[in-house]
Amino acid sequence: MRFFINRDRFVHDVQHVAKAVSSRTTMPILTGIKIVAKHDGITLTGSDSDITIETFIPNEEEGTEIVRIEEQGSIVLQAKFFAEIIKKLPGDEVEVQVQDPLTATIRSASSVFNLNGLDPEEYPRLPQIQEDQVFKLPQNMFKNIIRQTVFAVSTQETRPVLTGVNLELEEGVLLCTATDSHRLAQRKATIEMNDQSLQLSNIVIPGRSLNELNKIIDDSNEYIEFVVTESQILFKIKHMLFFSRLLEGKYPVTKGMIPNQSKTSITLKTKPFLHTLERALLLSREGKNNVVTLKTIEDNEIEITSISPEIGKVVERVQSTEITGEEMRISFNGKNIIDALKVIDSEDILITFTGAMSPFVIRPVDEDHYLHLFSPVRTY
Amino acid sequence: MRFFINRDRFVHDVQHVAKAVSSRTTMPILTGIKIVAKHDGITLTGSDSDITIETFIPNEEEGTEIVRIEEQGSIVLQAKFFAEIIKKLPGDEVEVQVQDPLTATIRSASSVFNLNGLDPEEYPRLPQIQEDQVFKLPQNMFKNIIRQTVFAVSTQETRPVLTGVNLELEEGVLLCTATDSHRLAQRKATIEMNDQSLQLSNIVIPGRSLNELNKIIDDSNEYIEFVVTESQILFKIKHMLFFSRLLEGKYPVTKGMIPNQSKTSITLKTKPFLHTLERALLLSREGKNNVVTLKTIEDNEIEITSISPEIGKVVERVQSTEITGEEMRISFNGKNIIDALKVIDSEDILITFTGAMSPFVIRPVDEDHYLHLFSPVRTY
Repeated sequence: MRFFINRDRFVHDVQHVAKAVSSRTTMPILTGIKIVAKHDGITLTGSDSDITIETFIPNEEEGTEIVRIEEQGSIVLQAKFFAEIIKKLPGDEVEVQVQDPLTATIRSASSVFNLNGLDPEEYPRLPQIQEDQVFKLPQNMFKNIIRQTVFAVSTQETRPVLTGVNLELEEGVLLCTATDSHRLAQRKATIEMNDQSLQLSNIVIPGRSLNELNKIIDDSNEYIEFVVTESQILFKIKHMLFFSRLLEGKYPVTKGMIPNQSKTSITLKTKPFLHTLERALLLSREGKNNVVTLKTIEDNEIEITSISPEIGKVVERVQSTEITGEEMRISFNGKNIIDALKVIDSEDILITFTGAMSPFVIRPVDEDHYLHLFSPVRTY
Repeated sequence: MRFFINRDRFVHDVQHVAKAVSSRTTMPILTGIKIVAKHDGITLTGSDSDITIETFIPNEEEGTEIVRIEEQGSIVLQAKFFAEIIKKLPGDEVEVQVQDPLTATIRSASSVFNLNGLDPEEYPRLPQIQEDQVFKLPQNMFKNIIRQTVFAVSTQETRPVLTGVNLELEEGVLLCTATDSHRLAQRKATIEMNDQSLQLSNIVIPGRSLNELNKIIDDSNEYIEFVVTESQILFKIKHMLFFSRLLEGKYPVTKGMIPNQSKTSITLKTKPFLHTLERALLLSREGKNNVVTLKTIEDNEIEITSISPEIGKVVERVQSTEITGEEMRISFNGKNIIDALKVIDSEDILITFTGAMSPFVIRPVDEDHYLHLFSPVRTY
């Protein structure tokens, strides 16, 4: 194998596939990045067996030469060193050469690295994916969906299925749900499909996969293609394939959970309410439980209180735009509300309560494609 | 106690004194910041008994009111919460009130915090400092001196005196030295003194004190006054006093260590040489010893090599401006050289070797007020 490649592009793609590589793997070959040179370009693969990322760098793009293949071949190089080395190389071009089958020579300007490699034949094959359940979304929309849901997945391994985001597809509407059983984030999106009758349910993508994918996709309106199988999902983006394992198990049915009536409704400015809760949390997080209490008072105001016996107490009044219904006094995990408020883009929110001991909903006033559900906390 | 204060200025000064506060203290009172309101302004104090920082916020400055004292008094408040709370307060002004002697009420806009405090009478007194050994330096110059020396102090507690930077003052020249016994950084500066005959030696300031001080002082040419006593040094900057304990013990005499002849001299561009060493270190730091080898070759070039048997090898040629004297092959800790090259501001450096087993010196070509000394590493 021998090829010359534009350094910036090589660094860019190596950093992408390196995101899948974990140093804590039981298969030593997976600590490496697989490099394959064929007549039309270079393929890079990184994997931790849950996530696999493959990118292709073509010989030329838009009339500009990126890669010049002198000899086809392949090798696996330690991701950790390889990624750092090419990032620091002095020249604009990098030469990669494999003479002895398990050693690569990397040259750039006055710099020559000899790196011990691993046998590419030992590298696991990519999963074979049947392309019959396919739909697509613009990258920037999916970035938003990830941002507005993934923070709410469970970090506890006691119910593994809750560590993922659940996708349901029905009548062209994608419903994405994340919950750790104390709070739930739900986001809807209209999608484009080849097959209009496509229905999907219980597609649970690990939160970690979505977080890594989110680092790679950009804010453009180019499409991501989703290919769904029994145990895998494949995200196709231009020259990149991103495979993720799906979580096994039955995702809880959330349809009936969201209350559709209300005893008390409060309309609030998002940002000031967020800042009030952040101040309240300065004390309540010391008590480890993050408990904050909200109370409706006179003149359309609410009062936010938090007490930490060791440190002190904070009381703050917030002006609401409107309060309708009964008086309300309720305690909740302030940190969970803050997480949700941070991903709400609307200026105004509506909180609807159905009782001091019942779940309540926060949704943007001007949009109906996402909502957040929270359990209250018992304080006595 | 009751006063109103400009929030931004309060946050600024509280953050300064909070730098001295450590959560790992055996004296609970030192987890707090002492706040004293007198008729002319507010004094804040933070300390971990090694470092003490005191700032004064006057009632007004340049015709603008900063503080309005309603009632004099004092309290000690938990640094961790207090600093975070005032940073997040909603209003431009903060009211601090102590009614019950050990509870403070902090009000700002719609926010009201009640914080449990500690007894200010228990707070240790500031060290009394005799002002007879005094000199001064511009802040920006002292910032540079810290940057160019403190990185070389020892992090090992086996010889505590080496964890500090040693100051010697003679004939109006301040000599600052840091060494961990493998490398040495030395910097000279001409200073201003009230007493021209002032001589100082073995003034060893803990590296940590200098790092904290460096975060507080700015790049201006305003002066810092240095007041030196037997066991303490006091830095006076405008409204701030920064006290540091001095390290006990005899600092090694470094005068005779710096070789004044040379067998081989190499002149190099600083930045390209730094980048070459950074690439070499990618491999050698895996071997834990950071060993890099330098060899003079033909055509005024040097060759930098680093080998890590597990990972591979790097060889790189560097063009020097000039090589004089004998051929040289020497191995050293590449990390130590990188640390030094990063604080050298000159474009060109001169390296002078006295032998493959003897210490060598790196100094800027165009300046003579600082130098770096290194021990070679035996590789056989």
